[in-house]
Amino acid sequence: MAKTSAGRYFEDFRIGDVIRHAVPRTVTTGDVALYTALYGPRFAVQSSDAFAQAIGYPRSPIDDLLVFHVVFGKTVPDISLNAVANLGYAEGRFLATVYPGDTLTATSEVIGLKENSSRRTGVVYVRSTGWRQDGTKVLEYVRWVMVNKRDEAAKPHTELVPELATTVDPASLGAACPSIHAAGWDFGLSGAPDRFDDYAIGEKIDHVDGMTVEDAEHQLSTRLYQNTAKVHFNHFAQVRTRIGRRLIYGGHVISLARALSYNGLANVFHVAAINSGAHVAPLFAGDTVFAWSKVLGKAELPGRGDVGALRLRLVATKDRTCEDHPLRAGHDYEPGVILDLDYWALIPR
Amino acid sequence: MAKTSAGRYFEDFRIGDVIRHAVPRTVTTGDVALYTALYGPRFAVQSSDAFAQAIGYPRSPIDDLLVFHVVFGKTVPDISLNAVANLGYAEGRFLATVYPGDTLTATSEVIGLKENSSRRTGVVYVRSTGWRQDGTKVLEYVRWVMVNKRDEAAKPHTELVPELATTVDPASLGAACPSIHAAGWDFGLSGAPDRFDDYAIGEKIDHVDGMTVEDAEHQLSTRLYQNTAKVHFNHFAQVRTRIGRRLIYGGHVISLARALSYNGLANVFHVAAINSGAHVAPLFAGDTVFAWSKVLGKAELPGRGDVGALRLRLVATKDRTCEDHPLRAGHDYEPGVILDLDYWALIPR
Amino acid sequence: MAKTSAGRYFEDFRIGDVIRHAVPRTVTTGDVALYTALYGPRFAVQSSDAFAQAIGYPRSPIDDLLVFHVVFGKTVPDISLNAVANLGYAEGRFLATVYPGDTLTATSEVIGLKENSSRRTGVVYVRSTGWRQDGTKVLEYVRWVMVNKRDEAAKPHTELVPELATTVDPASLGAACPSIHAAGWDFGLSGAPDRFDDYAIGEKIDHVDGMTVEDAEHQLSTRLYQNTAKVHFNHFAQVRTRIGRRLIYGGHVISLARALSYNGLANVFHVAAINSGAHVAPLFAGDTVFAWSKVLGKAELPGRGDVGALRLRLVATKDRTCEDHPLRAGHDYEPGVILDLDYWALIPR
Repeated sequence: MAKTSAGRYFEDFRIGDVIRHAVPRTVTTGDVALYTALYGPRFAVQSSDAFAQAIGYPRSPIDDLLVFHVVFGKTVPDISLNAVANLGYAEGRFLATVYPGDTLTATSEVIGLKENSSRRTGVVYVRSTGWRQDGTKVLEYVRWVMVNKRDEAAKPHTELVPELATTVDPASLGAACPSIHAAGWDFGLSGAPDRFDDYAIGEKIDHVDGMTVEDAEHQLSTRLYQNTAKVHFNHFAQVRTRIGRRLIYGGHVISLARALSYNGLANVFHVAAINSGAHVAPLFAGDTVFAWSKVLGKAELPGRGDVGALRLRLVATKDRTCEDHPLRAGHDYEPGVILDLDYWALIPR
Repeated sequence: MAKTSAGRYFEDFRIGDVIRHAVPRTVTTGDVALYTALYGPRFAVQSSDAFAQAIGYPRSPIDDLLVFHVVFGKTVPDISLNAVANLGYAEGRFLATVYPGDTLTATSEVIGLKENSSRRTGVVYVRSTGWRQDGTKVLEYVRWVMVNKRDEAAKPHTELVPELATTVDPASLGAACPSIHAAGWDFGLSGAPDRFDDYAIGEKIDHVDGMTVEDAEHQLSTRLYQNTAKVHFNHFAQVRTRIGRRLIYGGHVISLARALSYNGLANVFHVAAINSGAHVAPLFAGDTVFAWSKVLGKAELPGRGDVGALRLRLVATKDRTCEDHPLRAGHDYEPGVILDLDYWALIPR
Repeated sequence: MAKTSAGRYFEDFRIGDVIRHAVPRTVTTGDVALYTALYGPRFAVQSSDAFAQAIGYPRSPIDDLLVFHVVFGKTVPDISLNAVANLGYAEGRFLATVYPGDTLTATSEVIGLKENSSRRTGVVYVRSTGWRQDGTKVLEYVRWVMVNKRDEAAKPHTELVPELATTVDPASLGAACPSIHAAGWDFGLSGAPDRFDDYAIGEKIDHVDGMTVEDAEHQLSTRLYQNTAKVHFNHFAQVRTRIGRRLIYGGHVISLARALSYNGLANVFHVAAINSGAHVAPLFAGDTVFAWSKVLGKAELPGRGDVGALRLRLVATKDRTCEDHPLRAGHDYEPGVILDLDYWALIPR
């Protein structure tokens, strides 16, 4: 009668399984303050109730990525406790606004399984959903992880690699963004004059600033999300591995890069969708994170004259500045690149 | 006219003294967020307003140990500023629920004094009480500390070693736990199916996970509790002592071990009493904390069919995993053991 | 079309310019909890809603220095992103109480410019104002910073060194302090019996305790204030400078010293004005901060029998205790002194 959970291994997953994740979490202004202290975001809508109210929100919404991290955290004990690596994200959509006081829960459906040729691991694809206490979906995304097998001889019941959209259809964006009262948007207060029409496809922006990460910081953030992945917290175990130290939660990098991107994308106030994402290389304490963005696309939203969508590639590096927009070197990423994230975000028109 | 407090020395205490401690403290959801970030607890009642409401709470209560630390912190300037060591706890009982917005104050009564044979120190026993703004007692516990003497020649007015119960009478438990609406308890959301009847006396549970502690983390937590004990904060002074570094507040270890114990005790939602506790060895930054539990006893609560009480021994170690349940080696604790805590906790029936 | 801001250089400022700073910020109990965790303040009015209500506040106000840091943080991207050094403060006045839920914005007027003889830098004087969402001024202060020139040959349009008061007129204090119901002030709860009449001009108080600062801590605090000054966060860049490491935000030192000053100034509950301040030497992670105070003056406030004002010199040191009240050695500050702050604060009569 084991009372502790050892987590699922590859052969424990079956296509179609729907997993209800444990530990509902009420998100509060306390979490918002910590999120600010951990990354230093400055997007006005999330920073100021008064700003949010002037454009039509009842108050500041919870930062989209904080919602993502909390939902992601819930999935870890069931999906990725025995994961070797978090391989990618796709089809991520933010579907409803979350406010302080809302409670989040999560479920995941297994949508793909593929044994690796080594037979020691396999790839598990899940579509995870975040829910609000009233039964509203707030977030949906697919991620796939490489998971250890318990028994090398075990075979998956069915193998299936799901077909995933390379980008989220822009016509489906905006569900989590109320109608914006454009005249109330104060571009002096938000920090830059640039709006939808001021960004051009192909444009590259170096976000200039760098942020060094400490072990205490990423541990605080990862625990805040109730993410229990062992590699982030257990120095005693990590020094006995090939890596030799604690790994920083990839979501910490996403939030740092997003906060840095304010300098250049000040009015890009809402992450509406995640098209794809990869943690290209690990980040460790003491490393300094930089970031740059490229405008991959632009889209008008059906029936909405208030906001438009920018498709952005957000690239983060460690110990390497981004004035030269480092990305690819042949088939590989350039040394120092740690994150390659492709997302849709909303900006006033 | 010294305006600063040097704290009490052993000979300053008298049996029967009642000390009102300074600095009332309103506890908020901000404190809850920090508590989550510092330890990563996942007990559903404290994590989710919606979960708490479904079983009969008006909202999530403040974590019992957060209440304990805040009350404890208030007692430090008067009781243990000149303490050499925090020797033990007994007769701890949680007496009323505390919610965000409540203000806590504390008092202590001196109930015992005993000079040590060295004559340089003595042991002070106090019964400390935490109060809510409305005059309700929320917590009561005895602790004893070894306190320096100012003057080696000084004698205590009276010596008395109080008789303390080895365990809190289970019939007195449950005061801080409202009647639980059992049908509303969602064991999928709480994270494990195990309830009162699923635990057997003598059962041992290794909580598996490890958590490495950083100086910034324990300083943040200890200041959050307004605990002023110098040994936790002053590297400049500590390097000049035999210990050579900052000591981590023992309560930080208790909260870490309790948070780790979720993995195996997911439904053990309320610490109702502390029977005894000892900080067996100090913890330092960089050390990794592990924990295991043993079920020492079980008790039904008079008139309550909703919850039962488990008497649990919670043992924490540093840089040593707990699959072999390390505890005693002859008369001593095994190397690596840092906490031995005996408490009553409630769980749904 | 640069979308990122490189900040203003010396020649970009003109006397009379009024700059509206970006990123309004709603301050919450989450920020209060973090402020407590970062510095450990114990002033009862800010710590307890119940205490604050007993003396006439509707609830605990936001700590004056937290208000200061948030307002200061907003000014950084426009004023001091290319600053070499923060040279001084004057004429600081707290003008209205700020409560959780209030939103702060900031503006600055350029009131002085002076090229340095090296021609590579100049001094910029600004009067910065913090505003509440309802248009009320909450804070006003002058600071001057040494700012790099973009082009050594550039000349300022006008040069002017403003005349600044050496102290704020005590008759103008008290605007941010409601009428205090003196009978409700519980000196047992606040932590010391000393009130206005108990302090004498010339009195010196060693605040005894020391607090070691970690990189994670000052980064958390500085990001909490959305202060973007690069020197605090970017280890990668700092190791390539003469300094070789991250500098700790001077305001972090002010708040630490103020929190330490509770031990000796427990009833000095409100910072009403900043007469002058200088960051004498930098602080680095691993250093331990100590503090002492001197009573420079006392003043009754016109028409107010509830509170009086103490003019205090707050001196902070690093890795040096303050029992000998270190300050000046000839024309220089003594080694180890890092902060020299002259402020007015209120205390019950």
